[in-house]
Amino acid sequence: MRIGVLGTGVVGRAIAGRLEGLGHEVVMGSRDPAAALGRPASGWDPQTLAEWHDGHGGVRLETFAEAAEHGELLVNATNGAASVEALRSAGAERINGKAVVDISNPLDFSAGHPGLFTGWDESLAERIQRAFPRAKVVKTLNTVTASVMVDPLSVAGGDHTIFVCGDDVDAKARVSELLRSFGWSDILDLGDLSSARGAEAYLMWWIRVRATLGDARFNVKIAR
Amino acid sequence: MRIGVLGTGVVGRAIAGRLEGLGHEVVMGSRDPAAALGRPASGWDPQTLAEWHDGHGGVRLETFAEAAEHGELLVNATNGAASVEALRSAGAERINGKAVVDISNPLDFSAGHPGLFTGWDESLAERIQRAFPRAKVVKTLNTVTASVMVDPLSVAGGDHTIFVCGDDVDAKARVSELLRSFGWSDILDLGDLSSARGAEAYLMWWIRVRATLGDARFNVKIAR
Repeated sequence: MRIGVLGTGVVGRAIAGRLEGLGHEVVMGSRDPAAALGRPASGWDPQTLAEWHDGHGGVRLETFAEAAEHGELLVNATNGAASVEALRSAGAERINGKAVVDISNPLDFSAGHPGLFTGWDESLAERIQRAFPRAKVVKTLNTVTASVMVDPLSVAGGDHTIFVCGDDVDAKARVSELLRSFGWSDILDLGDLSSARGAEAYLMWWIRVRATLGDARFNVKIAR
Repeated sequence: MRIGVLGTGVVGRAIAGRLEGLGHEVVMGSRDPAAALGRPASGWDPQTLAEWHDGHGGVRLETFAEAAEHGELLVNATNGAASVEALRSAGAERINGKAVVDISNPLDFSAGHPGLFTGWDESLAERIQRAFPRAKVVKTLNTVTASVMVDPLSVAGGDHTIFVCGDDVDAKARVSELLRSFGWSDILDLGDLSSARGAEAYLMWWIRVRATLGDARFNVKIAR
């Protein structure tokens, strides 16, 4: 499949690299590809994009617009605060009618403690859907760390649960198929896109569990 | 142990009944015990308190103040919106120095969708702690339905996780011991009471999972 991955951070790289390995044609988009490639390593991001790209030559690095143009299916792996703008700069005409896998989280640490910049009455996924009414937004994977998103078998043999939320049933089915190709087996459809409010608020709890465990490589299994 | 359970709803009854069964001396408190006993059944609450009490004669039904006076350990099982007032009417002098197991949730459906009446900067547990600085508030059990709180083995053989949050290490240890007596084995200490913000925001996600499963009797197991 031709897939456009928007965002070149840890999440974008994990997704793009995994999709490349599965044989998809992947274009990764950023606001300014040259600047992204020249960015030095940091504490949050110890591997530079250039270093990552050395091992993933099959992934093309282009602008948001070119990645969106390329993809039959798009993945929003940009920072939550920048997601709507990133998609706008990609252009609605390149997004309309396509499934958009939204992995972003509306995290906001500006007040000195973890919060979300959305309220109880709207998720970031719905905000994206509202900005692009003809996109088929599917919220998923935002509840696990990047390495677990693309390799669920790396945690507890894969015996844990991932969620999909979205208004378009066909898009959810297509995204679920992609998730299965990553190794996910327990995929729970939480319902329409408003259920993404739950999947995003979940992060407030995830952050504390991560701090307690001292490790982001965990997930939840729904025991029933 | 002498335990005071504040609240006579589904949660209060589940906790009080289980504690009675384990041999504790339990007093259940409400604002107006006579009114609570006279309340008819409703859709939310198909069993009346009077019917419940017929099968649990060992639990005394008294006022909030009398239940608090009785308990060496207290359980806040009141509605979240009414919790601080319920504890105020019990009287700080009857609460000070005691472990207070806080099971309440700051749920708010007044806007027509699920929300919390707290913000990202304070949990209801912290609000209670602030109102009663000498109490030893321990947040726990708010992440599962009443029947699972007191009988974790009824779901997936008990192989799932419960959380405790609180500033007082000894109170958390004491409450964890009580949880073990209920059948809990995977008890994760999320840290100080501010981590209750995560355990309460979790409800926004729990509500959607419950709707999807059509059943409240589930929980999560932390897979790591």
